[in-house]
Amino acid sequence: MQAVIDLATLNDASDAEFVATLAPVFEHSPWVAREVASARPFPTLTVLHRAMMATLSALDREALVTFLRVHPPLSPESLRGGTTPESIAEQSALGIATLDAAAAARLEALNAAYEKRFGFPFILAVRKASLDTLFATFERRLAASDEVERAEALEEISAISWMRLMDLVRPAPTGSLSTHVLDVVRATPASGLGVELWRHDQDGGMTRLEAFVTNAAGASERDLLGGGRLAAGTYEWRYDTSTYFARHGYATPARAYLGSVKVAFTVWNPEEHFHVPLLLSPGSYTTYRGN
Amino acid sequence: MQAVIDLATLNDASDAEFVATLAPVFEHSPWVAREVASARPFPTLTVLHRAMMATLSALDREALVTFLRVHPPLSPESLRGGTTPESIAEQSALGIATLDAAAAARLEALNAAYEKRFGFPFILAVRKASLDTLFATFERRLAASDEVERAEALEEISAISWMRLMDLVRPAPTGSLSTHVLDVVRATPASGLGVELWRHDQDGGMTRLEAFVTNAAGASERDLLGGGRLAAGTYEWRYDTSTYFARHGYATPARAYLGSVKVAFTVWNPEEHFHVPLLLSPGSYTTYRGN
Amino acid sequence: MQAVIDLATLNDASDAEFVATLAPVFEHSPWVAREVASARPFPTLTVLHRAMMATLSALDREALVTFLRVHPPLSPESLRGGTTPESIAEQSALGIATLDAAAAARLEALNAAYEKRFGFPFILAVRKASLDTLFATFERRLAASDEVERAEALEEISAISWMRLMDLVRPAPTGSLSTHVLDVVRATPASGLGVELWRHDQDGGMTRLEAFVTNAAGASERDLLGGGRLAAGTYEWRYDTSTYFARHGYATPARAYLGSVKVAFTVWNPEEHFHVPLLLSPGSYTTYRGN
Amino acid sequence: MQAVIDLATLNDASDAEFVATLAPVFEHSPWVAREVASARPFPTLTVLHRAMMATLSALDREALVTFLRVHPPLSPESLRGGTTPESIAEQSALGIATLDAAAAARLEALNAAYEKRFGFPFILAVRKASLDTLFATFERRLAASDEVERAEALEEISAISWMRLMDLVRPAPTGSLSTHVLDVVRATPASGLGVELWRHDQDGGMTRLEAFVTNAAGASERDLLGGGRLAAGTYEWRYDTSTYFARHGYATPARAYLGSVKVAFTVWNPEEHFHVPLLLSPGSYTTYRGN
Repeated sequence: MQAVIDLATLNDASDAEFVATLAPVFEHSPWVAREVASARPFPTLTVLHRAMMATLSALDREALVTFLRVHPPLSPESLRGGTTPESIAEQSALGIATLDAAAAARLEALNAAYEKRFGFPFILAVRKASLDTLFATFERRLAASDEVERAEALEEISAISWMRLMDLVRPAPTGSLSTHVLDVVRATPASGLGVELWRHDQDGGMTRLEAFVTNAAGASERDLLGGGRLAAGTYEWRYDTSTYFARHGYATPARAYLGSVKVAFTVWNPEEHFHVPLLLSPGSYTTYRGN
Repeated sequence: MQAVIDLATLNDASDAEFVATLAPVFEHSPWVAREVASARPFPTLTVLHRAMMATLSALDREALVTFLRVHPPLSPESLRGGTTPESIAEQSALGIATLDAAAAARLEALNAAYEKRFGFPFILAVRKASLDTLFATFERRLAASDEVERAEALEEISAISWMRLMDLVRPAPTGSLSTHVLDVVRATPASGLGVELWRHDQDGGMTRLEAFVTNAAGASERDLLGGGRLAAGTYEWRYDTSTYFARHGYATPARAYLGSVKVAFTVWNPEEHFHVPLLLSPGSYTTYRGN
Repeated sequence: MQAVIDLATLNDASDAEFVATLAPVFEHSPWVAREVASARPFPTLTVLHRAMMATLSALDREALVTFLRVHPPLSPESLRGGTTPESIAEQSALGIATLDAAAAARLEALNAAYEKRFGFPFILAVRKASLDTLFATFERRLAASDEVERAEALEEISAISWMRLMDLVRPAPTGSLSTHVLDVVRATPASGLGVELWRHDQDGGMTRLEAFVTNAAGASERDLLGGGRLAAGTYEWRYDTSTYFARHGYATPARAYLGSVKVAFTVWNPEEHFHVPLLLSPGSYTTYRGN
Repeated sequence: MQAVIDLATLNDASDAEFVATLAPVFEHSPWVAREVASARPFPTLTVLHRAMMATLSALDREALVTFLRVHPPLSPESLRGGTTPESIAEQSALGIATLDAAAAARLEALNAAYEKRFGFPFILAVRKASLDTLFATFERRLAASDEVERAEALEEISAISWMRLMDLVRPAPTGSLSTHVLDVVRATPASGLGVELWRHDQDGGMTRLEAFVTNAAGASERDLLGGGRLAAGTYEWRYDTSTYFARHGYATPARAYLGSVKVAFTVWNPEEHFHVPLLLSPGSYTTYRGN
C-alpha cells in the first residue's frame, strides 16, 4: 500500500502530482482525477470523491460503458492476466483465486451471461463482500434492466473508489460517534447506564475502545472517536442493561431476559457523524440509524 | 458439586432421600422439600420448584421473616463464619471475599441499615450479579416498603433456589430456541437469511452452536437445542444482514449500515421455549421476548 | 354494479357463463377468463385470480404490450370516449373528470411522455389512489426501465382486476382479523387491556364493530370478523392504554403520554387472515404486519 | 370557572391576592400558596407548581396525612356533602353522581377498606379517568404499602392541582409540537411526506389544526402550536403513508397495508415541547416519546 498523505498535501500538490497520487482510485482512468484537479482545495475526502463521481455521472451512455469496460471481471482467470495491483489484492482477499472447480465454473458462467447482456463486466466492491454475497448479488443484478444495472455498477465503483481513496489520503477529522438511550418504561432518558464501545478487528477479534456511564440525557458527555480517531470499520455499542434494570427494579439480574444489548454498525465514511439511538425496555429494544 | 441426578430418580426416591437430595436448595430449610414430597411425581423442575415456592408464599409474616433470617448476609465476615458451602461459593465468585476496604465498609454499612430496617439480611441471587449490580440493587431496595421488600427477598430466593436445584437435578427436556425474522420493507418473512446461534461461555469466549438459512416462513425448519440440549446461560443470534440486503438490492455490502445484527438473551429456565423475533430493515431493527 | 354471485355458482356455471360473468374483470379481454375456465373448481377467489394473472405473466413481450394497449389512458378525454363502464366509474371517483385546467394539462403531458416511452398507456389502480398519489406515482414510473415498468403495469392490473372480481363474486369466508399485545415492560402478554375494532366508512365516518378485553395471551378469545364478515377496506384497532397503564401503576391517566393507541391497516384481500401485533410500553410502541 | 389571568398579573399581585387566586388549587389548603408567595416572580406555571409541590413533599408523615385527610372521598355521598365546587365538578364529570347501585356499593366498600388501611381517603385525578380506570386503579393501590401509597396520593394531587392551576392562570407560551419521520427502508429522513395535526375535541369530534409536507430533514419547517397556542389535551399526527410509499415504489396504494398512520398523544403540560418521532417502513412502524 502507498504511504498515506494528508488532504492538505494533496490540495497543495501540482496537478500532475494530484493526478498521479489518485491514479489507483479508478481502474485505468487517471482522467477522472484530472477533471477535478482545478476544483481544489477540497475540505474533505467526501467532497473530493463526490466531485469525481459527478464526473462519471455526467458521462453519456456510450462513454460510461467504455469506462466500465476497462474493469477486470471477477474471476481466477482475470487474476492471472493484466489487472491492477489493487484489483488483485481485493479479489484475492475474497477468495476468488482459490475457488473450487464448481464455484469457479459457476462464476465463469455468470460472467459470460452478464457481459453478453450488459456489454461490460460485473463490478462489485468485493472488499466487504463474502462469496455468498457475491453470488447472491450477481444473480439478482443479472435480472435488472440496463439502466438500473448501469446505476448499480456506478454505485459499486463509488464504493470501490472511496475505499481506495481512503487508503491513499487521510480523511478529514470531522467524524465521530454517539449514542442515546431512551427508557421507554418511564419515557425518560436512561441515565446511569453503563455503555462500552468496541471495534471489530480485522483478525476477527474485538477491542474495547471506550467505557462510560450515560448522563442525565441518556448519552455520553461528548461525542466519541472525534478528532480524526474514527476509522472505517465495524463498531459495536454494548449496554449493561442487567445492572440498569436491577437499579430501577425492572428485573432481577438472575432472571433478566436482556442481560446486555449489543448494537453493531458499520462506518464506511469516517468523515460522518454516526448517532445510534436505543429504545430500551426489559422485554424489547429498537435501534435505528439516527441523524 | 453433587452429582446430577434425573428427575425420574428424584420422583421415585423415598421421602427421606428426596428431602436429603434437595436439602441444599433452601438455606438451612429442609422442611420446604419435606412439604412437597408427597406431591410427587413432578413432570418438570419448573413444577417442583413452583410447589416449593408456594409453600414459602403461604407463610405468614412472622414465619416468613424467621425463614429469611437464617440466610447469611452478603459480607466478607459471613464468609469466614458458619454459612453453607453453596453460599460461600456464590459469594466468592462475586468477589465479596476480596473487596477493598472502602467497598467492604460500604457493604457493612448497607447490611447494618438493611437489617435494622427490615429485620432480616439482604438477600440477592449473586451468581448472575456484578458488584455494580449488588450496590445498585442494595440502595434501591433499602428504600422500599416492608411488604414490597419481603416480596423482593422471596423473588431472590426463588432465583437462588432455582439455580441450586438445576445444579442437583437434570431439567426436563422441554425447552428449546427459535427465531423468526420479518422483512418490514416488503412486509413478508425474511427467507434465505443466514443465521447463527452462539453461546456465551463462562470464560468470556463464544461458541457457535448452529448455523442455518431461514426458510420461507423466515425461521429455522425446526426448534433448536431441543431434546434436553438447552442449558441455562446466555445465547446470541447473529443474522447475516449484509448478504440478505445485497440479495434484495436494499444496500450494497460496501455501504450497509447494519452489516450484521446480534441479539443476545439469557435463558434462566431451560425447560422453557424461547422465541426471539426480529423486525428487520436496512435502517432499523426491533427485537422482543416472543411467546 | 352487477349482482354478486357465489363462487360455487361460478364454479358450476357453463364455460360460456363463466367467461361472460368475468368479462368486466380485464379490460376488453374476455380471453383471460376463457383460459382458466377448465381449471375449475376454484376453492377461493385468490386461487382463481392467481390463475388468471399467471396467464398474463406467461405472455411474451409483444403479446403483453398488445394486452396493455387496450387499456384506456387516465384522462378526461378518455372518459368521453369509448372506455368501459368500470373504467369510467373508477376514474370519475378519483376526480379525473373534474380536474382543473393546469392539472389536466399536466396529466396530458405525462400521458404523452409515457406512451411515447413505453408504447402503452399508464395504468394505475385508481380506486384507492388520490390525485397526489397519481401524480407522484406517474413521475416515478416514467423514469423506470422497460422491464420494470411492464412488471409494474401488470401489478396494477392485478390490483384492478382483483377489485373488480370482488365486485362480481363473493369472496370465500376464509379471512379474519386478530391482534396480540405484548407488554414489554414486564415482557409478558398484556392481558386485561380494552380493545375496540373500528371500520373506516366510505363517507369518512367510523363504525365500531367489536369491543373486547384481552385474555391471558394478550389477544381476543377468537379471531374477529370470520365466517365471511371481513370485507376489503380500512380497519382500526384502538387500545385503551390509559386504563391499562393505570391498573399496572405504569402511569397515572392524568399524565399518560399515550392515552390510547390506534393502529389503522388496510385489507385488500378479505380471504386472508390479518394479524396485528402491538409491542407496548408507556413511552413507545411498535406494530407490524404479522403472519 | 374563574376568569383566567396572566402569570405576570399573578407575579405582580399582593400576597393576599396571590393566595386568594390560588386557593382553589389545593383542597381546603390556602397555606400551600402562602408558603411560596415570596418566591415570586415565577417564569412559568411549571416552576410555580413545582415550588408548591416541594412544600408538600417536605411535610413529615403526620402533617402529610393531615393534609390528605381534608380531601373528599370519591363517592355519591360526598357529592351531597360539603366538598368544594372543584371536586363536585370533577367527580360529576366522571359519573360518580349517577353510578348504579352495584357500582356505588362497590365504590363504598373500596372507600371504607382504603380509609381503614391508610387513614386518608382515596385520591385520584378523575378529570382524565374513566370509571374503568377508577376501579382498576383503586384495587391496585389498595394493595400498596403505606409509603408507596402516600407517594401515589401526592402524585395524584400534583396532577389535580396542575389542572386546576391551568384553569386559573394562562400557561407560559413555551410549549410546542414537532414530529420527525425516518424512512428505515433507505435509512434517511422521510421527506415529501404529507402530515396533518389533529386535536381530539371534548365532544368526541376531531379538528384538523395543521397540514404540511415534511422537509429534507423529515420534519416540519418550524415547531407547531408555539407562541401559546398549545393547550392541554390529546393531539394526533396523521401521516399519508400511502402516497409516500407509492412515490418511492415501496407499495402500490391499492395494496398498501399501512395506508395511513395515526399517532395520538396527550399533552398535560402545555409549557413543554413534545417531539414525536416515527420510524416508518411498509410493514412496521415505531413511535416514542422523544426528547
